[in-house]
Amino acid sequence: MTNKKEIIAGIIIIGNEILSGRTKDLNTSALSIWLNSLGINVQEVRVIPDIEKTIIDTVNELKKKYNYVFTTGGIGPTHDDITAESISKAFNIEYDFHKEAFSLLEKYYDSGEFNEGRQKMAKMPITANLILNPRSGAPGFYVENVFCLPGVPSILKSMIGSLNSVLIGGDPILSKTINLRTYESEIAKTLTEVQNNNKDVEIGSYPFFRQGKLGVSIVLRSVDKDKINICNSQILEFIKAKNIKIVEID
Amino acid sequence: MTNKKEIIAGIIIIGNEILSGRTKDLNTSALSIWLNSLGINVQEVRVIPDIEKTIIDTVNELKKKYNYVFTTGGIGPTHDDITAESISKAFNIEYDFHKEAFSLLEKYYDSGEFNEGRQKMAKMPITANLILNPRSGAPGFYVENVFCLPGVPSILKSMIGSLNSVLIGGDPILSKTINLRTYESEIAKTLTEVQNNNKDVEIGSYPFFRQGKLGVSIVLRSVDKDKINICNSQILEFIKAKNIKIVEID
Repeated sequence: MTNKKEIIAGIIIIGNEILSGRTKDLNTSALSIWLNSLGINVQEVRVIPDIEKTIIDTVNELKKKYNYVFTTGGIGPTHDDITAESISKAFNIEYDFHKEAFSLLEKYYDSGEFNEGRQKMAKMPITANLILNPRSGAPGFYVENVFCLPGVPSILKSMIGSLNSVLIGGDPILSKTINLRTYESEIAKTLTEVQNNNKDVEIGSYPFFRQGKLGVSIVLRSVDKDKINICNSQILEFIKAKNIKIVEID
Repeated sequence: MTNKKEIIAGIIIIGNEILSGRTKDLNTSALSIWLNSLGINVQEVRVIPDIEKTIIDTVNELKKKYNYVFTTGGIGPTHDDITAESISKAFNIEYDFHKEAFSLLEKYYDSGEFNEGRQKMAKMPITANLILNPRSGAPGFYVENVFCLPGVPSILKSMIGSLNSVLIGGDPILSKTINLRTYESEIAKTLTEVQNNNKDVEIGSYPFFRQGKLGVSIVLRSVDKDKINICNSQILEFIKAKNIKIVEID
């Protein structure tokens, strides 16, 4: 199989509500699963507060480190939504009404409803590319390799599909999960050996509690299906010899 | 009221399973709520992969930046659990069997069950302080200001209480939430004014969908209860004048 270059991404979750524990972050999981399917590997997530300098510094650091950076949160109408202005400053682009965004929102809202708060959602780096929002009108945007999405998970999910034709991925990362009724410590030694013999497959081991019972998920990840299958066979051979119960293979 | 120094913390979530999207991170929320109650403000979260150099570099960066650093994940028995060894390297402390941890685990497991995998969970920086684990035996540990906890949320939650007497917090951060049946854009202008007049209160605005209806949560956070109440009154006055429906105040 041909090996494309590995394409890597970082995610920046912007919002005091995640740092205070008030809101659980669901966007990392949604973005990672989607990016994986495009062959883009998420290597780092940062959760940061609504502080302009922190946003600018984090964006400037990560946009150099990764092929793509995704931000979530802070593009709404209120005073604590400062992502668009911060991104403008990070890229040194004028922050003002974006013509296309303004016209989109003007059409979206009924006459008289397009108030100051809503108009703010058309303010962003004036040369940004828009990311359309089929759910609630207000668009996201991207500048170079930095993609700015909203914080509300259902709206974010409705918007990312439109980027499939914009992002250039690498080989898709494939995975296989083997769920076992056992303890990690029973299989640790063998997993180490299998990992040492299969360097191109990332083997993860994760304990779980489900329906009151303990178990372990072994997750095999690689861009190479054949290598995953070889690894899988080696593990199943051991499992069989040890008489460990397989809950499911996925 | 007397003002104690602000005490700040960073969280490092270690684990490929979070970055792949397979597992949703629940530990940030659990840790943040608990730390808030102790007057410790979480300022940053990083999710990083199971890569030794990344763990060492991130720990070394964050332990200088924050009063406390908390890591989750990577202290189990399998090959991909490399947090304890990485922390040893970050602090230049020998990584080997920790006498107290070894003796704890030896007692926890029945004779013959304390195998190689389980013994690995007693390996850590040899001079570390232990964090006891009432749920499943294997302890966490801390070195200076870096606290290493497991990744399984229910086990993590069972362990953090024992640190209440170890951590020194600042003034507890208080909060009030006003849930309204409105749109952010309807209240954006007023919130900006109230925020400008109340610099010591952090005002957050978060749209929500609940039981099929849109709403906005306004969250007021401060160490000063009186200042939260002043802010609250100013917002309620506006809400009343505008005839906006209050869903609940919490």
